[in-house]
Amino acid sequence: MTSRNQILSLFRRNPGAFVSGQELSQTLNISRAAVWKQVELLRELGFEIEAQRSRGYRLLGGPELLLAADIQADLKTERIGRGLECLEVADSTNAQARQVAEAGAADGTVIIADRQSAGRGRLGRRWESPSGVNLYCSILLRPQIPVQQAPQLTFLSAVAVAETLSELYQLPARVKWPNDVLVGGAKIAGLLNEMNAETEQIHFVILGIGVNLNMTAEQFPAEILYPATSVLLETGQACDRVAFIRALLTRLDSYYSEFITDGFVPVRRRWERLCELLNTRVQVDQNPGVLQGTVVGLDQDGALRLQLDNGNIERVLAGDVRPLPSR
Amino acid sequence: MTSRNQILSLFRRNPGAFVSGQELSQTLNISRAAVWKQVELLRELGFEIEAQRSRGYRLLGGPELLLAADIQADLKTERIGRGLECLEVADSTNAQARQVAEAGAADGTVIIADRQSAGRGRLGRRWESPSGVNLYCSILLRPQIPVQQAPQLTFLSAVAVAETLSELYQLPARVKWPNDVLVGGAKIAGLLNEMNAETEQIHFVILGIGVNLNMTAEQFPAEILYPATSVLLETGQACDRVAFIRALLTRLDSYYSEFITDGFVPVRRRWERLCELLNTRVQVDQNPGVLQGTVVGLDQDGALRLQLDNGNIERVLAGDVRPLPSR
Repeated sequence: MTSRNQILSLFRRNPGAFVSGQELSQTLNISRAAVWKQVELLRELGFEIEAQRSRGYRLLGGPELLLAADIQADLKTERIGRGLECLEVADSTNAQARQVAEAGAADGTVIIADRQSAGRGRLGRRWESPSGVNLYCSILLRPQIPVQQAPQLTFLSAVAVAETLSELYQLPARVKWPNDVLVGGAKIAGLLNEMNAETEQIHFVILGIGVNLNMTAEQFPAEILYPATSVLLETGQACDRVAFIRALLTRLDSYYSEFITDGFVPVRRRWERLCELLNTRVQVDQNPGVLQGTVVGLDQDGALRLQLDNGNIERVLAGDVRPLPSR
Repeated sequence: MTSRNQILSLFRRNPGAFVSGQELSQTLNISRAAVWKQVELLRELGFEIEAQRSRGYRLLGGPELLLAADIQADLKTERIGRGLECLEVADSTNAQARQVAEAGAADGTVIIADRQSAGRGRLGRRWESPSGVNLYCSILLRPQIPVQQAPQLTFLSAVAVAETLSELYQLPARVKWPNDVLVGGAKIAGLLNEMNAETEQIHFVILGIGVNLNMTAEQFPAEILYPATSVLLETGQACDRVAFIRALLTRLDSYYSEFITDGFVPVRRRWERLCELLNTRVQVDQNPGVLQGTVVGLDQDGALRLQLDNGNIERVLAGDVRPLPSR
């Protein structure tokens, strides 16, 4: 952790209170002059810091920068988040996670960014990633499962995100095949998972998770492909990002352990229970072609099971799904 | 292509004949002195080159270095090998292919190396890769198929390798699940495929193909996990590596086009016809656990279909398969 982030972390553990220059200097093992320099840098980043000769420094306000130390402070997980890095900006957290994965980072390593300069959604679509309001994170996993089962982890992360939103904010979050989380039909979170594998061995999977937390209506782009929302827009109040991240990582960790032990069946059951379009007539726009039928569930490998009008079950592996008016 | 490889290529188009210094100088657009320097470098690499003042240079012998120009000269393929690079040495051709893939190389790009310094087989096992005798190549594909179907390409490449060995050398080549090619129960080729994908989109697949062509008995390591063989050991004579590569790339290209149009069914039929252990009782060593049953075929996603003794069909996604004595 940088000296700057150590200072921020100390301030946040003592909300509203003064921290003496001497305490900062001792804890960080840097000179009083160096402390002063770091405080100046924080002020340049937009933090409002009061300085009193006799009492020291205190934080009055500023951007809500995510800090690894804050997130990890009370995090009781087995794998996910034991290694965790918070960046002020990343091109995309998935790209950063790929880099640390290729350098050998451990199962469960988490990369979080306050802002993404090139955030992406599914099929290369842009993912709006303004600073300081949402969650953009990527989780590196190294599961010992066959390549064909890797897509199952997409559904695991969708379930964890939806349930965390329901648990913390009582939102009626639902999952939409293959990788969206909706509230009232509007997108509140999206998942973008990547995999690197050879014939019989997964090198790594990256679960990319974007959740709209404190994004305001003005921060959504004018031209948007699907209706979108955020926790702030749904509940009317800003949420504590650190609390959300901790709850999400804890749930992911527990489901990932269960997945390693018991496989896909528990995840699949939860996903089907949360499925936005279960038992609904839908159209699947594929390229080329179109399918119509009723969603009846999720298959072992993550295919959507669709009952066609002739009664046959069709397995859908790719496409955009939208509800049809019931007949 | 380097000047050195251009000179070699010119020699090979005029087997046993002299090529004048002037012709070399004009074709390569370098000075006569520079031609002389390249010839000296080739001699240092082990090529025997005769020089006569009045007639020029001719190649008498030397290592059989693979050249892209030789391979591509008569190659009539649609995708595979339109881009092709021959290296004297690669850590592994898969690693090289990954690099060019990440730099944006096109569907069908081929990387070949005369020698691998860190050749690998399945599950990280070492793959013996001596210089100048075998084929080590990697083929970059960018198929627009769901992630779950990517393993199908392993079986496509196994079929193409086995059929090319049968066609050119009348060898009774068979395929063994998941990614070996055998002759008389001994391994003559191995496949190592890699994939890079996100939720609904494959970035690239790399088909790594190693075929033992002119390897002698002495060149196999003393401690070997499975019995191994080569074309030379089976037929008693060295084969023309360039002819083999051209035939293999042509067959791969044709099956890949068919796969894009008609999907996995034709590949699966061919694979089952060539399957070493079809209708044989086998044991599958998994980790943990062991399965016994009779091989009855290949599933849509590349799983081996095993009929257990109780009649149930079990889908095998990973493990080492070996025949059991029939009861």
